[in-house]
Amino acid sequence: MSRVHITNGLVITAADELRADVLIEDQTVVALAATGSAAASGWQADTVIDATGRYVIPGGVDAHTHMELPFGGTQASDTFETGTRAAAWGGTTTIVDFAVQPMGGSLRAGLDAWHAKAEGNCAIDYAFHTIVSDVNDAVLKEMDQLTDSGEATSFKLFMAYPGVFYSDDGQILRAMQRAAQSGSLIMMHAENGIAIDVLVAQALAAGRTDPLHHGEVRRELLEAEATHRAIKLAQVAGSPLYVVHVSAASAAAELAAARDQGLPVFGETCPQYLFLSVDNLAEPDFAGAKYVCSTPLRPREHQAELWKRLRTDDLQVVSTDHCPFCFVGQKELGRDDFSKIPNGLPGVENRMDLLHQAVVDGRISRRRWIEIACAAPARMFGLYPRKGTIAPGADADVVIYDPGAEQTISAATHHMNVDYSAYEGQRIRGAVRTVLSRGTVVLDDGRWLGRAGHGRFLRRGTCQYL
Amino acid sequence: MSRVHITNGLVITAADELRADVLIEDQTVVALAATGSAAASGWQADTVIDATGRYVIPGGVDAHTHMELPFGGTQASDTFETGTRAAAWGGTTTIVDFAVQPMGGSLRAGLDAWHAKAEGNCAIDYAFHTIVSDVNDAVLKEMDQLTDSGEATSFKLFMAYPGVFYSDDGQILRAMQRAAQSGSLIMMHAENGIAIDVLVAQALAAGRTDPLHHGEVRRELLEAEATHRAIKLAQVAGSPLYVVHVSAASAAAELAAARDQGLPVFGETCPQYLFLSVDNLAEPDFAGAKYVCSTPLRPREHQAELWKRLRTDDLQVVSTDHCPFCFVGQKELGRDDFSKIPNGLPGVENRMDLLHQAVVDGRISRRRWIEIACAAPARMFGLYPRKGTIAPGADADVVIYDPGAEQTISAATHHMNVDYSAYEGQRIRGAVRTVLSRGTVVLDDGRWLGRAGHGRFLRRGTCQYL
Amino acid sequence: MSRVHITNGLVITAADELRADVLIEDQTVVALAATGSAAASGWQADTVIDATGRYVIPGGVDAHTHMELPFGGTQASDTFETGTRAAAWGGTTTIVDFAVQPMGGSLRAGLDAWHAKAEGNCAIDYAFHTIVSDVNDAVLKEMDQLTDSGEATSFKLFMAYPGVFYSDDGQILRAMQRAAQSGSLIMMHAENGIAIDVLVAQALAAGRTDPLHHGEVRRELLEAEATHRAIKLAQVAGSPLYVVHVSAASAAAELAAARDQGLPVFGETCPQYLFLSVDNLAEPDFAGAKYVCSTPLRPREHQAELWKRLRTDDLQVVSTDHCPFCFVGQKELGRDDFSKIPNGLPGVENRMDLLHQAVVDGRISRRRWIEIACAAPARMFGLYPRKGTIAPGADADVVIYDPGAEQTISAATHHMNVDYSAYEGQRIRGAVRTVLSRGTVVLDDGRWLGRAGHGRFLRRGTCQYL
Amino acid sequence: MSRVHITNGLVITAADELRADVLIEDQTVVALAATGSAAASGWQADTVIDATGRYVIPGGVDAHTHMELPFGGTQASDTFETGTRAAAWGGTTTIVDFAVQPMGGSLRAGLDAWHAKAEGNCAIDYAFHTIVSDVNDAVLKEMDQLTDSGEATSFKLFMAYPGVFYSDDGQILRAMQRAAQSGSLIMMHAENGIAIDVLVAQALAAGRTDPLHHGEVRRELLEAEATHRAIKLAQVAGSPLYVVHVSAASAAAELAAARDQGLPVFGETCPQYLFLSVDNLAEPDFAGAKYVCSTPLRPREHQAELWKRLRTDDLQVVSTDHCPFCFVGQKELGRDDFSKIPNGLPGVENRMDLLHQAVVDGRISRRRWIEIACAAPARMFGLYPRKGTIAPGADADVVIYDPGAEQTISAATHHMNVDYSAYEGQRIRGAVRTVLSRGTVVLDDGRWLGRAGHGRFLRRGTCQYL
Repeated sequence: MSRVHITNGLVITAADELRADVLIEDQTVVALAATGSAAASGWQADTVIDATGRYVIPGGVDAHTHMELPFGGTQASDTFETGTRAAAWGGTTTIVDFAVQPMGGSLRAGLDAWHAKAEGNCAIDYAFHTIVSDVNDAVLKEMDQLTDSGEATSFKLFMAYPGVFYSDDGQILRAMQRAAQSGSLIMMHAENGIAIDVLVAQALAAGRTDPLHHGEVRRELLEAEATHRAIKLAQVAGSPLYVVHVSAASAAAELAAARDQGLPVFGETCPQYLFLSVDNLAEPDFAGAKYVCSTPLRPREHQAELWKRLRTDDLQVVSTDHCPFCFVGQKELGRDDFSKIPNGLPGVENRMDLLHQAVVDGRISRRRWIEIACAAPARMFGLYPRKGTIAPGADADVVIYDPGAEQTISAATHHMNVDYSAYEGQRIRGAVRTVLSRGTVVLDDGRWLGRAGHGRFLRRGTCQYL
Repeated sequence: MSRVHITNGLVITAADELRADVLIEDQTVVALAATGSAAASGWQADTVIDATGRYVIPGGVDAHTHMELPFGGTQASDTFETGTRAAAWGGTTTIVDFAVQPMGGSLRAGLDAWHAKAEGNCAIDYAFHTIVSDVNDAVLKEMDQLTDSGEATSFKLFMAYPGVFYSDDGQILRAMQRAAQSGSLIMMHAENGIAIDVLVAQALAAGRTDPLHHGEVRRELLEAEATHRAIKLAQVAGSPLYVVHVSAASAAAELAAARDQGLPVFGETCPQYLFLSVDNLAEPDFAGAKYVCSTPLRPREHQAELWKRLRTDDLQVVSTDHCPFCFVGQKELGRDDFSKIPNGLPGVENRMDLLHQAVVDGRISRRRWIEIACAAPARMFGLYPRKGTIAPGADADVVIYDPGAEQTISAATHHMNVDYSAYEGQRIRGAVRTVLSRGTVVLDDGRWLGRAGHGRFLRRGTCQYL
Repeated sequence: MSRVHITNGLVITAADELRADVLIEDQTVVALAATGSAAASGWQADTVIDATGRYVIPGGVDAHTHMELPFGGTQASDTFETGTRAAAWGGTTTIVDFAVQPMGGSLRAGLDAWHAKAEGNCAIDYAFHTIVSDVNDAVLKEMDQLTDSGEATSFKLFMAYPGVFYSDDGQILRAMQRAAQSGSLIMMHAENGIAIDVLVAQALAAGRTDPLHHGEVRRELLEAEATHRAIKLAQVAGSPLYVVHVSAASAAAELAAARDQGLPVFGETCPQYLFLSVDNLAEPDFAGAKYVCSTPLRPREHQAELWKRLRTDDLQVVSTDHCPFCFVGQKELGRDDFSKIPNGLPGVENRMDLLHQAVVDGRISRRRWIEIACAAPARMFGLYPRKGTIAPGADADVVIYDPGAEQTISAATHHMNVDYSAYEGQRIRGAVRTVLSRGTVVLDDGRWLGRAGHGRFLRRGTCQYL
Repeated sequence: MSRVHITNGLVITAADELRADVLIEDQTVVALAATGSAAASGWQADTVIDATGRYVIPGGVDAHTHMELPFGGTQASDTFETGTRAAAWGGTTTIVDFAVQPMGGSLRAGLDAWHAKAEGNCAIDYAFHTIVSDVNDAVLKEMDQLTDSGEATSFKLFMAYPGVFYSDDGQILRAMQRAAQSGSLIMMHAENGIAIDVLVAQALAAGRTDPLHHGEVRRELLEAEATHRAIKLAQVAGSPLYVVHVSAASAAAELAAARDQGLPVFGETCPQYLFLSVDNLAEPDFAGAKYVCSTPLRPREHQAELWKRLRTDDLQVVSTDHCPFCFVGQKELGRDDFSKIPNGLPGVENRMDLLHQAVVDGRISRRRWIEIACAAPARMFGLYPRKGTIAPGADADVVIYDPGAEQTISAATHHMNVDYSAYEGQRIRGAVRTVLSRGTVVLDDGRWLGRAGHGRFLRRGTCQYL
């Protein structure tokens, strides 16, 4: 049995800030003990990590990534190997990626394909949601089976992308009804894609082809509308709902209104909506393409509203929607037509740091940082308290974080496999010092000690907010 | 050094449900350890408490009690001795009572008087809020001093009771401005007392004198109005606000609306508003007098709204407003005039059980039970994590709770010094088995082992939600 | 030149209640004059109508009728001849019916077909909206042309009835954009038909086939949702919106919220939603079929909300959606399957009386009665002040109404060509005594003096609320 | 009998725009007749006014003026003679002024004093509201008597100005209860004066003495709060409510919310809040004092919100709150202390023109112009249809308005007795050409033909919106 003793740090979880030691046996946290207590001092460790002046926090849980995702004739540039390693560099020790149901195929086929990509390649633990491209009787049955087995307990539907991932309101209703019965969770990309496609065609016909128009046609009102509609369909079905990548203040307001009524409705936003804006989409020389993602970036004033909703718990989770495409060769596919720009931004490595900067800036408390980045995604997707906290019995996914360090985000130094950073030049106070994944130190003071294949697939329970 | 080892139970805090052991040294929790881990098993205890099949929860924190309160020519029937003992019987290990500024006197004088009543008499730890009867320059200075010293960091004002505790909007504004600077917390009794007194006089003049009219004249609209006004004054002052004993659905809605805007506004409700209604006020033969309190009981349909607001965290705390008066000789003072009935209900002993019944009934989760009854009041009033949770470094105030037990609330068996129970006959699933106060077992399996004077006065920090 | 002098009555318009005489020359009102003034007394009339003790009101404008509408393999039982005559009996002197674009055909074709049905057959003046079954480039051009010529300036789309009239959100958006440019008005049947069809199929599969389930599957939430969506699409398009037959309180609330924002959004309800409820759908022996219409009847408590919205002007118009099917042979088509019951209720003859009863019951004022039944529909659809009021220059469509009369609605006495009344047995205070259509007395004291062919087609302007 | 025939104009009322002639006999409108009809042409007039190319509109009704009001040791600079003449110059033919209950005196005494000031001095008709300084049993009785006799049917209370006009919430409630019984209308100055006075004292103590701080201490939140409170008290009393001089967007939002619930709540705003802002209060060299009034001017962005509320009918009336004080010698009283600046602005002459400019600017329709400036105040205060419209039987208060004229507002040319204009330099399209007061031409093409004493005191009915 290997024993690690993390001492003298400030343990921060979603619930507490404690001067306490963390005692680890093999892959598991076995105790939190007052520093210097008999319980702490009597226990003999193989490794002692001195966290004086540092935070001891749970490893991050990024509940929304797309490694190696085929999209628009190309594919996301991070593999499970490069992407999970970058995640660990950034203090994230669990990702939940999306297995895509192939057109005309089964959820099983999608999961098999994604297992094949991930297995043996991941540096940290991973799980899968399933993207449902076609709701039919067979798929509804598969949803139940996957929920029962824990292989995938959350299912993503799209109100956008007609002809690709789009489900109509009848399909959505049926999937929600099934989720209401099985206890699984419907995740929703909430944009009115049918209306947006009309505006896209009109913009292109009018010669408005540059990246800025990506943001203009994907109207805020059409995100708010779809969010409202998804909530109402969930009410009809009696099911919970998780809305992914909320970017519009008015969409967040729809979630807040539903939550005030006591409905089991949840929302996620992403660092790009909190730190970037349409100003980035307007960057010259096609540089705006770097920031093309859907839902799109919004005017700067939305940021404050999203931070507010994170504080009021009307948004619960910050994930990255990490889906990197290189500027050269990939983003450039849409040089003459914004609708051909692959949608997605890199970010899995930056999330924990960016959110700590928000702590420094007074936007959120330290506990709320850990909640939105670790505990809440773990609870939401049935991984808590194994992931997302530091407690007896939890997986020993622990990050030693130095709140006083300074760094600057840059593609020159990041570990993601992509040729630009969406946050290039962003100053950050704070830095990851040491990362443990299931008791193993995978990163220490700038040295990579992890390995592809250390990460294991995680079966999950159902949403723990219900 | 005395050591207690609580093993095999389910530790429930506001944040977690863990199969873990609690290790106590003298008055303090020193570790939470996985049951059976080396950390747990290597540590030698003097006392082992087997909590198999039971919950191990933090002792309750009742942030609103009135022991020995002089009111309407009589005084609350529980002394600090009888009241704190009853609290402990009910699983509550901390109370925050109210020292009253005497008319024309200082806050200091009020605190001195209340220290004299409490010191040496309490079975459990206690702290004081201060009731401010007269906001003036001297008092504002005292507020700062008390906040600095931690003797009292929260100050209660009344929008009701003109001529007694009433402050006008200017006084309220000044107190809030001061609280905004010092970090202290204004607690508000939010009812429009000026308007209510008109309605009281009209009711009495019309011969509507029985207890039912107490509820009728204290209109829901006038609670909602005052709540709204207090929120706006707090906005002007830039201060936080804590509204006590919210009983009206519409008042709770005002809090919810303010919280949606991100304002630091908080609300407390009480078991009487969650379990009783105007139907009780209408009980015949003057029995309605037993239920006379202000804010008053509301129609039954308000209960579901208050439960909803507790779930959505628009209300954060359940306190008792424990202020018992015997039916015989005390409540009877108002037999011919409802306005002469001493205002208040007993409840300090019943709160933890009633809220557990709500868990059994599916109204709230187990964690939310602990949050609203233990953790949130401790955070709100600057006592966390010393009180309100089970964590390394916390005071060892721990309750072993048997979720499968059955009991019936009755004046025949309760320990409060009052001749009736507001919840007579109420069936409860669950019961307190063992209570530790700062590491000392004060109650065990129906035997009282505590003593007056064990309880100590608690200095407090400021509100931890800010 | 023929001259009619209506004297001694109380002239009621949406704006005024005046003791005044109405002076008519040929087809037109030429003056309102104080009774007994020189202006009134010096003018020589051929016919004097003494309206002592009676109201002199504008003829009703029913902006939503479906004469001879083919639906579900049968057709509405009133022809333009029978239906317009019945309308006049009920004090309505203008109808706006719906010409239906044939599948694969043009709006022109629809209008031609409906002109053929109506021309030479109508007892009163009539106009047409157009139902757009298929939004495409050619149809969008036709919309502009019809608006320019005034032949049809309002266009109805359906969010319900997939596969029949249904337009998707992209088609709706395009039509709205066009309407924003041309000044025409989009009318919307706002129910989420895609989701409803899932629930219909589930109900039928489960054997829930009787009329009551028609109301249950067409969920209130799905009317509110579609209403919200239509509003958001109109906001994107920058167009006004008129929602037909609002039946759900929550749908009306969506309109109210939009109007509070200053959006040009309008709503219509119908007598059936104000006077009937799901209790009627539950009538035994398949009698519930008489009340099957879409949107469906709602629980009784919605009625008060709709009246409130009529008072607050969040709903502007009461039309009938008159679409009668005989119980025998028509409604019976759905005896084993509620989805096969032809949708629609008779009512064109009852509207003015039912709404006067609401005046008697204190629900609305006399002026508001005239506004919602005469002036507002005329303004909404570009017919004011020619229709909908009594003013110099207006068409002399005038009703002499006896507010003190008493009557009982019954199929035994009504003039609509349908074998039942939706309001059988309803007591009404008030009755139509005399009806003038463009200066001609068509009904007088129970004698029919009108003729098929008197009524003329009306070209219309655009919505006068914009 | 004198007869006037106004021909060829466009008659605009709140309800209609008609090409019609207006026929006047002595003091009364006797007919509206189609231009050229026999009714119009057969009638012989003494005077024919050709209104070709002009609007024929009802004379304005200014429901909020303060002629000769004693305030802060001085008095408003317009007498009833100068003020009513200026009103007529500006197209206003009725004012409702405020008789003030003297401290310790009766409403009767106040009315007697104001009758003495007005009688024989007014150029146009006038009526009185009563300002209630002290609600007590005797006053409540007087309120009933005055309502019954029609001498004053509306009563103004103040939530501001403690020690002067201030009523506490109990007094307000009692007055509202009485109004609910008698049908009279409570008018409310809604600002939390108790809280404002604290902020005033703090500002002065801190040396913030210039006019700008008048706007800062009278916080928007404290207007919104008082508006909300007044609404709730009215709900408790079951009475209607009219809030005067709404200046804050959030106060208007409170009214809108109440109206959405169907409550009989009404609001007035004034030209100064629609056209001026805190930018004016910040004018240098003490010039800000010219714009000191209460409620105060707000930041510019409130203007759009108030216009919106006027469009949505959440505000119903635009009055002036005309209360002029000369800059020299009067406003200067507060040179060292903003709280000593007499509160009030001149405007009675400018209202009709400023609102017509809003028509030109597309903010409101022509009909809405007449509604908010003529018809609605007349209905609100029981003067309709005698005042506020052009209809058979109405007083012949008629204005011929030239929509194409151009003018510039200036103290150099205005007729009010005050040494500055609040709208100096404001360009206006449109101008009053001819004014008739009860059939008499008092102003014609720049010549004053009226006389002091022509105007008569008006008894009033109760609010016609109830």
